[in-house]
Amino acid sequence: MFITFEGVEGAGKSTAIRGVAASLEARGAKVLLTREPGGSGLGRELRRLLLGTSMDLDPLAELCLFLADRAQHVARIIRPALARGEIVLCDRYADSTIAYQGFARGLDVERLVTLNDIATGSLVPDLTLVLDLPVEEGLARVAARRADAGADEEGRIDAETVSFHEAVRRGFHRIAADEPGRVRLIDSRPPKETVLAACLAEIDRPGLFSA
Amino acid sequence: MFITFEGVEGAGKSTAIRGVAASLEARGAKVLLTREPGGSGLGRELRRLLLGTSMDLDPLAELCLFLADRAQHVARIIRPALARGEIVLCDRYADSTIAYQGFARGLDVERLVTLNDIATGSLVPDLTLVLDLPVEEGLARVAARRADAGADEEGRIDAETVSFHEAVRRGFHRIAADEPGRVRLIDSRPPKETVLAACLAEIDRPGLFSA
Repeated sequence: MFITFEGVEGAGKSTAIRGVAASLEARGAKVLLTREPGGSGLGRELRRLLLGTSMDLDPLAELCLFLADRAQHVARIIRPALARGEIVLCDRYADSTIAYQGFARGLDVERLVTLNDIATGSLVPDLTLVLDLPVEEGLARVAARRADAGADEEGRIDAETVSFHEAVRRGFHRIAADEPGRVRLIDSRPPKETVLAACLAEIDRPGLFSA
Repeated sequence: MFITFEGVEGAGKSTAIRGVAASLEARGAKVLLTREPGGSGLGRELRRLLLGTSMDLDPLAELCLFLADRAQHVARIIRPALARGEIVLCDRYADSTIAYQGFARGLDVERLVTLNDIATGSLVPDLTLVLDLPVEEGLARVAARRADAGADEEGRIDAETVSFHEAVRRGFHRIAADEPGRVRLIDSRPPKETVLAACLAEIDRPGLFSA
């Protein structure tokens, strides 16, 4: 069972995914909690290159780095965990490439679908939860978190314009509309307990994990 | 004018490319000498990941890293130099992906051609010189060079089997046979002065750089 969590910056993916992992483990499931970029040894190196502020990355080079991270992650981490019967919860996956590199950076979406398919060996999530909220609210949460942490620098992606993040959000809405069976929008403005309950309701809906 | 140099390990690419650069500069040309992986700032980081011995890389992840290096290199280094009217000499380029990831690692060659086309924005060299010699001779040269340098560790690619390198060489032969107008095989067993003269003869052949 492979579940991915998507959404704009500050949508509350990390909080939701940790809550889901704890709930599933409390029921006795074996859970692997991982993320992109950065879910493998290679990925941690690439995450630094991709999310640091210093590098002037060509959009195609950026895309290929995300795909490298994904290929390594799927081959070395995700597929082995699924083969062991674990539930894999992944913070960002192929849909982020469609939303960020496609809808926001303007690369051809059909081509990105093909490249994702190559990089993942056609591994598609059983369920994708898109945590959704207005872009300004998400960016405000990121800024507050950064202030709490005493960090003064934005990441390379956080620092994009509001219209960039609006395009990302539109991308996720489009994906959810195109694939209603796999992708569910979760309103992430309510308190985190409510958001977690909404995530678990999607995971528990009849037919998904029952044989 | 964009000229690439290809070949198996130890074929003498570095020596030949430096000789060609010096000859062209002596004639008054402005030359950019560069290489893949590692021709850009990003590329130098990726070169470390790609050629170091420590990383267990999935073949698709490896491919995507080479493509990321290439996309950044083309967009940020090669195209600007060509636009300034410089002659670009590049140590390895897209044909290495076909030979190494396709012929040697077994990834689908047609798909690799498409991916190279995407990563480079369809930038094809005006001339490609494949420095050719038997694999054992090349590997012996690499081993001798490593002993001279006092280095005791092989690179991740150098350490592949002889049959891997044989497959790489067959790949280059196939590319040369398929594209005789662009790709020329240069026998790199003779003394380096002879090899350099053969390279310059290809560069000077009528029609290539004359209007």
